[in-house]
Amino acid sequence: MAKATAQPCPAQLAEALRYAVFPGGGRVRPGLCLAVAKAYGDPDPELSDAAAVAVELLHCASLVQDDLPCFDDAPLRRGQPSLHRRFGQEIAILVGDALIVMAFSAVASHVVAWPAKASGIVAALAHAAGAPAGIAAGQAWESEASVDVAAYHHAKTAALFEAAAVAGAIVGGADSRDWRLTGGLLGEAYQVADDLADASGESDRLGKPTQQDGKKSRPSIVHDLGMVGAVARLNSLLDQAVTSIPPCPGRSDVQNFLSLAAARLCPPELRRPRNGAEPDHGSQLA
Amino acid sequence: MAKATAQPCPAQLAEALRYAVFPGGGRVRPGLCLAVAKAYGDPDPELSDAAAVAVELLHCASLVQDDLPCFDDAPLRRGQPSLHRRFGQEIAILVGDALIVMAFSAVASHVVAWPAKASGIVAALAHAAGAPAGIAAGQAWESEASVDVAAYHHAKTAALFEAAAVAGAIVGGADSRDWRLTGGLLGEAYQVADDLADASGESDRLGKPTQQDGKKSRPSIVHDLGMVGAVARLNSLLDQAVTSIPPCPGRSDVQNFLSLAAARLCPPELRRPRNGAEPDHGSQLA
Repeated sequence: MAKATAQPCPAQLAEALRYAVFPGGGRVRPGLCLAVAKAYGDPDPELSDAAAVAVELLHCASLVQDDLPCFDDAPLRRGQPSLHRRFGQEIAILVGDALIVMAFSAVASHVVAWPAKASGIVAALAHAAGAPAGIAAGQAWESEASVDVAAYHHAKTAALFEAAAVAGAIVGGADSRDWRLTGGLLGEAYQVADDLADASGESDRLGKPTQQDGKKSRPSIVHDLGMVGAVARLNSLLDQAVTSIPPCPGRSDVQNFLSLAAARLCPPELRRPRNGAEPDHGSQLA
Repeated sequence: MAKATAQPCPAQLAEALRYAVFPGGGRVRPGLCLAVAKAYGDPDPELSDAAAVAVELLHCASLVQDDLPCFDDAPLRRGQPSLHRRFGQEIAILVGDALIVMAFSAVASHVVAWPAKASGIVAALAHAAGAPAGIAAGQAWESEASVDVAAYHHAKTAALFEAAAVAGAIVGGADSRDWRLTGGLLGEAYQVADDLADASGESDRLGKPTQQDGKKSRPSIVHDLGMVGAVARLNSLLDQAVTSIPPCPGRSDVQNFLSLAAARLCPPELRRPRNGAEPDHGSQLA
């Protein structure tokens, strides 16, 4: 970030780049990347850091872009004015570009030290960010008359979680294919949680507008399954994610990470009660 | 392109990605990259191809974005409806993202075979595309109240020409710093030519709207130097570019490439007459 915002960077672009990334949200995606690398002793911490940074930069780029007038037209993000409301649409679009470039640059700067690992990470990031099945493709499904809902959700949210887990596994020297499933399940859980949050209408707590899926006629798991069904799906995906963790030296640490991520995901009233009873979703959630 | 537009790519995004890249314009930037690599025998043609492709994809991304309503709001590009007029703003923004990802992906896929060279090329591309001094930064200068005109022109146009020459030199195993100047001078010449074309008002010939610099109060060399001064500057930059070509086995081939590029740049009435007389810029060009 220091390098990207140094002279001769135009002042507003520099300020907006920092605004897009700091303070962050949950940093769950880079956390997943680092947790997986640590499960194998994190043998190349500079590379895992770079991969985690790249994943988060791509995520931040996607948020800035999601909020644009032609997409969600969101006035708020993380409780602050959305980037384009603060700096204008032009700067917001350019911030998206620059963050994507920074993401690839962060990993590519380690290519000489770790060619095979860095190459694998860049490929995973590119798959998660672009076409045919990354974030850009996910958002593009919203422009189609007929939507492949599974492809839409996978590309829009799960793909970057997959890449985060895969990148961590690559740094750890593990078979990254084993980790794709775990990342993808956590990502799917995040998509369900996002749909639930949107449907909940709690924009104050979330720091962003809600009830957008209905307004924009976007595919939503809550629309398909109802609140009760969506909550059940969320809990099931989180269980599956934990079960899917491949055998590795730090398996319990990854389990802990997923549990913490799950706690962040579920608002209290949706959390699975420990006694196994149905969660208390009142009539307002039905 | 085949990979990016394959299943499960949403249909409109796939069509728009092809629309952004085919048919192309002059392909001058990738041509420069290949000409420089060939001046050293093009020892790794797969890598020079990938670098040339990446340079062109970044250029195409910048054109799609330049044309957006919040930037130039251009209805035409290369004589066709601009991408956002044809596919909508959402898809245009996503095409920009996906093309940037494709550019880095193209080079990164050769990292294992040529770690040092690919690393240098990615760094050059990132420098040319992002912040603080690449295309995104160049466009961001247009949002500043006070513009550093040299930084603006360099970032918006010259940086990618520099990267093209540098990438070709890296593939060729040459000292890329020597080629930065040549690329930058050709890029500066393109910027002057673009300002001249804009001022000329010949939107039919150019296939895009003209007289935008004045309307948008953008810095323009024609505004600063007048038509006669700008033409003199263009010819001087092209001369300097040719003179700056470093000693290399294929120096005359690069000279030829630059001459052809120069011929493309100058509309006939602005070309320096061979007898050394002043160019014939009629009253409509004054």
